[in-house]
Amino acid sequence: MAVSGSSGGSVKARVLLQQCLHARLQVRPPEEDCEAQWLEMNRGMVIYVCFFKGATEDIVPKMVNTLLNMKLSETDSGTYTSVLDLPGSVLVIPQATLGGRPKGKRMQYHGNIDKDDGQKLYTSFVAHCEKELSLATKCSEAGTEVKHGTYGNRQVLKLDTNGPYTHLMEF
Amino acid sequence: MAVSGSSGGSVKARVLLQQCLHARLQVRPPEEDCEAQWLEMNRGMVIYVCFFKGATEDIVPKMVNTLLNMKLSETDSGTYTSVLDLPGSVLVIPQATLGGRPKGKRMQYHGNIDKDDGQKLYTSFVAHCEKELSLATKCSEAGTEVKHGTYGNRQVLKLDTNGPYTHLMEF
Repeated sequence: MAVSGSSGGSVKARVLLQQCLHARLQVRPPEEDCEAQWLEMNRGMVIYVCFFKGATEDIVPKMVNTLLNMKLSETDSGTYTSVLDLPGSVLVIPQATLGGRPKGKRMQYHGNIDKDDGQKLYTSFVAHCEKELSLATKCSEAGTEVKHGTYGNRQVLKLDTNGPYTHLMEF
Repeated sequence: MAVSGSSGGSVKARVLLQQCLHARLQVRPPEEDCEAQWLEMNRGMVIYVCFFKGATEDIVPKMVNTLLNMKLSETDSGTYTSVLDLPGSVLVIPQATLGGRPKGKRMQYHGNIDKDDGQKLYTSFVAHCEKELSLATKCSEAGTEVKHGTYGNRQVLKLDTNGPYTHLMEF
């Protein structure tokens, strides 16, 4: 994995992690006859993900394995463990804006992957998260879940944290 | 300003921006005789900031000027303008974890500035934000404000967004 600043132009994905106690994410906007639809998750990790041009399917399993095993989740005793061992839930949010580069007073997104390829990788990313949680005994026993936003939509998010403990990772 | 991936080892500060409708941030933890103290802010921008070793006071005015003038705040008509022109409030949150680099399954923070220097730069950063908002006519007229977390403490945050629209900037 690469870290910002050390990776030259070869970054294929940028991920932001925040720890959360409870989150609500709108997955369908309100329409005339229909209220907005929301998902909820409890304690766990929010993963904002952005893929860059050149990202391919083969990076996804390693990304997911790395992210879900990083010891960034605070236990009740104040130590840090992985979200799989907490055990916690995972909320995946597509966040193409993370790929922005400033040009004057605006952001440009020329390095971002195109939408169709991004959608495929995002879907694969979510599927790999689901697989890892299903294989993690503590997660299965506790019934923790993977939730995720809908690619290409506005991610209306309400987030409660005990400290977001925000981390950036690049792959 | 530098952008992640193009800056070699010369990054002095990393900033994360999220747009918010309402936020609550704990600025004093609960104690035996005393409830936790919180601040609140309404519509505007959350700025998570982390300084690296080698960061000096001279980067702060430029950072603040750049960040507050980036057109990342959504207007009621769906276009994007700066937080100064929205006009919106600003919530500054110290977030040293943004400087983490993965080493195995843990994060290391060897590149982060030491705590005393970081506190000085953070204080200066907040003061420059206050100055810019006070000079911005729209902000003064609307009474928008700069709020900020307390350096070195846990940043217990509750954030409501209409889409966080998360951006990363490095300086």
